Amino acid sequence: MKGVMYFDQAASSWPKPPAVMDAMIQCMQEYAANPGRGSHQMAVRASRALFETRKNLAKLFGVRNPNDISFALNTTHALNQAIKGFVKSGDHVICSNVEHNSVRRPLEYLKAAAGVELTYLHHDEQGNMDLNELKEALRPNTTLVVVNHSSNLLGTIMPITEIGEICKSHGAKLLVDAAQSAGVLPIHVADMNIDMLAFPGHKGLLGPQGTGGLYIHPDMHLEPLLHGGTGSQSEAIHQPTVRPDRYEAGTQNTPGIAGLNEGVKFVLSETVDKIHAREWAHSQHLMEGLLGIEGVTILGPKLGQNKTGIVSFNIQDVDSSEVAFILDQSFQIAVRAGYHCTPLAHEVAGTLAKGAVRASIGYFTTDEEVAALIEAVKEIQTQYAK
Amino acid sequence: MKGVMYFDQAASSWPKPPAVMDAMIQCMQEYAANPGRGSHQMAVRASRALFETRKNLAKLFGVRNPNDISFALNTTHALNQAIKGFVKSGDHVICSNVEHNSVRRPLEYLKAAAGVELTYLHHDEQGNMDLNELKEALRPNTTLVVVNHSSNLLGTIMPITEIGEICKSHGAKLLVDAAQSAGVLPIHVADMNIDMLAFPGHKGLLGPQGTGGLYIHPDMHLEPLLHGGTGSQSEAIHQPTVRPDRYEAGTQNTPGIAGLNEGVKFVLSETVDKIHAREWAHSQHLMEGLLGIEGVTILGPKLGQNKTGIVSFNIQDVDSSEVAFILDQSFQIAVRAGYHCTPLAHEVAGTLAKGAVRASIGYFTTDEEVAALIEAVKEIQTQYAK
Repeated sequence: MKGVMYFDQAASSWPKPPAVMDAMIQCMQEYAANPGRGSHQMAVRASRALFETRKNLAKLFGVRNPNDISFALNTTHALNQAIKGFVKSGDHVICSNVEHNSVRRPLEYLKAAAGVELTYLHHDEQGNMDLNELKEALRPNTTLVVVNHSSNLLGTIMPITEIGEICKSHGAKLLVDAAQSAGVLPIHVADMNIDMLAFPGHKGLLGPQGTGGLYIHPDMHLEPLLHGGTGSQSEAIHQPTVRPDRYEAGTQNTPGIAGLNEGVKFVLSETVDKIHAREWAHSQHLMEGLLGIEGVTILGPKLGQNKTGIVSFNIQDVDSSEVAFILDQSFQIAVRAGYHCTPLAHEVAGTLAKGAVRASIGYFTTDEEVAALIEAVKEIQTQYAK
Repeated sequence: MKGVMYFDQAASSWPKPPAVMDAMIQCMQEYAANPGRGSHQMAVRASRALFETRKNLAKLFGVRNPNDISFALNTTHALNQAIKGFVKSGDHVICSNVEHNSVRRPLEYLKAAAGVELTYLHHDEQGNMDLNELKEALRPNTTLVVVNHSSNLLGTIMPITEIGEICKSHGAKLLVDAAQSAGVLPIHVADMNIDMLAFPGHKGLLGPQGTGGLYIHPDMHLEPLLHGGTGSQSEAIHQPTVRPDRYEAGTQNTPGIAGLNEGVKFVLSETVDKIHAREWAHSQHLMEGLLGIEGVTILGPKLGQNKTGIVSFNIQDVDSSEVAFILDQSFQIAVRAGYHCTPLAHEVAGTLAKGAVRASIGYFTTDEEVAALIEAVKEIQTQYAK
């Protein structure tokens, strides 16, 4: 919207590179046929659009075979596929204490419905894990460890490589929720010992909503979450084993995935390192500015520490939703208030009672926007704080 | 694609009304924030786009409360939610013998994994059901009957109202797969006793791929297929019961749904009756033309009978994929060959060995295109048939 300063990048990135919209429209106008469901030129072109995107995602994530990546409606879909398709009755699963509800709720469901054992690891106030606690939590029946790469409330970055090594030596699989890291932190599934990687298309990858995906290690064999038509082996009663079809029943979001491809290409061309450096610099400026305001407290890693572009804060006792409301109505600044689907992380941060204001930075965030947000918080603090 | 005559409407409709693309781009450019995940203006506008679409879908399907409709990636997702969220171990389910793999495979999975009992009803060669067979198939533990509204191979229209009455008097729920009927046949969930309705956004509703949905009767309470964040009741360990959140975990496809809204509005304004009449007239012309060619056989309802815009045929012994290939390469005509994810329907039609060529008609199909397809089949028959 015109004039809006958008600090809700962690929920959905905006704006998008213009090529994203161009690709979506081109797909809709020229080849919106059903990929994999026909051999005519339009259907072939649709299939090719999906494969191109898969190839670029594979390049970005260090995946050898693009077909080990399947598309999903969103990260939640990918996480549900990973968790429910892998975990069995009697398994023990470990997850971190700053997980999003998209990890916690499927796991709690399996705990209640299938007798799965579940351990939450503790984190310090900054959201850091204790790797020794992870090692001690492992049991003979631990089959899966689930961690987010970066907390959606705190911005803390988890030591995925080290976690991956611990999982590997124990024989447990590692599922990484890359909701806040895909496109903004380096990810290499082989080097980092990641067995499954769930990622959104509409956040750091700069694609449209309605896209996301799941990488599954070629040695793993999951039960599909969706059974249905795949355009392949139509005569088989059961879901084909061939990838990506096994995990992609039904018609895929071709225009969205065509748009995602342009987002991924943008990320590959700018490079994740440059994107992260830029977002980190902006987050540091924002933190410096906010820390200069009396009564403002910031959650998560301290100034100077590595983190993603998330700055969650509170102004003394002012309710977080009131702050967000004033920022929106009086300053045209979009942030998010409340719990951000991660009540556990609020327990860690000690903000379960009042929530927090989350300002999240994207690649297109400008110095001027950061300065405007700092000024606005100053004004609110002066007028509203007790 | 330029110059392509597109007869693959049953896989995905094309072209779309221009307003569909306009709405998608407007969403991407102006308000691609996360619906239901923030209270700022952009997020509110995104939420409103979802609600407007829900409202128009409710109007189209005779649904009283728009929140009883939840969005899905595709019909397969909606069908999996309906079937796996409702059917329990020990239940008996009845489905028709012309179901798509998106119904058959989830049911066969539950049969194998959860000991669900499964009965397939027989159909005659035209795809017609015998309602007495349905009545006789009902058992005390029959909890669900699943039928498509119209076969994706034969175009046969099922007597949903009568099936609904039989289900109701027995106490079984009725799930209708509207993949081929939403937007082209009248649907009224209350009048037709439909308990769950799964529908695609990208076929008769003229929206983009990556959209679809599920209506669930307000008295039914399903286990969600996807557990995760909903933007509501973040602090709850389990999925909220409030609709549509319960069945819509994770970020929805806002640009796609905004586009779908324009497709639905187009259908509401043209009216389903007019759309069906137009498609039926074109299908009759096509059938007349094809029946005048020696050796051509048409599957499904006979000339003059009611059906949807699907005309599946074979030319003597010519392989269906060869016909489709020639139509594509030499005539720029896009059709689909093979099994169309519905091997059962091919058993019914007696075409399991060679498949069939499916030409499917949409609202934008023209007289000239129908004439061109007939001419092309004539040429192929002359040159290739033995």
